[in-house]
Amino acid sequence: MSENNSVNGNETSAVMSSPFLKMLVQQIRANDSYGFYRNWSDELILKPFVVTKQKKKEISIEGEVDPATISRINAFFRAIASRIEIETGMISNVVIQLGHEGFGWALVFSGRLLLTIKTLRDAHRFGFGSLEKLNEEGEAFVQKGIELAQRFPDVGNL
Amino acid sequence: MSENNSVNGNETSAVMSSPFLKMLVQQIRANDSYGFYRNWSDELILKPFVVTKQKKKEISIEGEVDPATISRINAFFRAIASRIEIETGMISNVVIQLGHEGFGWALVFSGRLLLTIKTLRDAHRFGFGSLEKLNEEGEAFVQKGIELAQRFPDVGNL
Repeated sequence: MSENNSVNGNETSAVMSSPFLKMLVQQIRANDSYGFYRNWSDELILKPFVVTKQKKKEISIEGEVDPATISRINAFFRAIASRIEIETGMISNVVIQLGHEGFGWALVFSGRLLLTIKTLRDAHRFGFGSLEKLNEEGEAFVQKGIELAQRFPDVGNL
Repeated sequence: MSENNSVNGNETSAVMSSPFLKMLVQQIRANDSYGFYRNWSDELILKPFVVTKQKKKEISIEGEVDPATISRINAFFRAIASRIEIETGMISNVVIQLGHEGFGWALVFSGRLLLTIKTLRDAHRFGFGSLEKLNEEGEAFVQKGIELAQRFPDVGNL
């Protein structure tokens, strides 16, 4: 049991030091004007991004998306934009359109090039099965964006 | 006086038959599920798009943007998207992000290519000085989008 804990602990430390999760934490801390998260560990800050399947089922998709959930969606795509920016030098913007029904779009673009396109569905339930999964999905968007930026620099720099 | 009226009447007819304004009317009629506009002339339907400088000053930019104004912003960019689609054959999407403060983005894209980028400011006051101006601005976005689509077809068809 204690061995298991220790293994999980090491795995968590490893994923917490990944460039994407570090950027995600940085995004949240940078927007923390009131110092709400000042004394929180990085892990605690990212905890609400982990939403198990069971938990998702319990979240109603009726009505407006919770403002805290919207903040997390924003932070996730801003972190993607910042990581791509660091790797490619291209300045990018994040645009998120979210209807009351939890449907919408998340876009990251630079110049005339769309680096990230994600349709949002049931945004009320935005979250990932684990920190590893959060990192994997974020990193996949980052890699795809970098690939596009390198493939079409003339469009990205327009 | 009657001569003046007649001249204005002819000018209005001319601009009303422009491809952009015709598409804009078509967009609005297509979304008119309740038949609200069924007996309205095209000109009457487009009238709220004309907002004089004086009128703009009278519209408060406090609080939420009026739903009817949001509908007009949507219709304007959907008309741009449809016109580009007809001219280039590229299927496109419209994404509009609008904050409570009337600031935001309007984007039209096809594949990974942004055909239209417009930052929105004081969206409460969305409107054009005249029907001619409405047509000119819409048509300018259409032409720019077509030019980009033709220049970067590989990005638009991704």
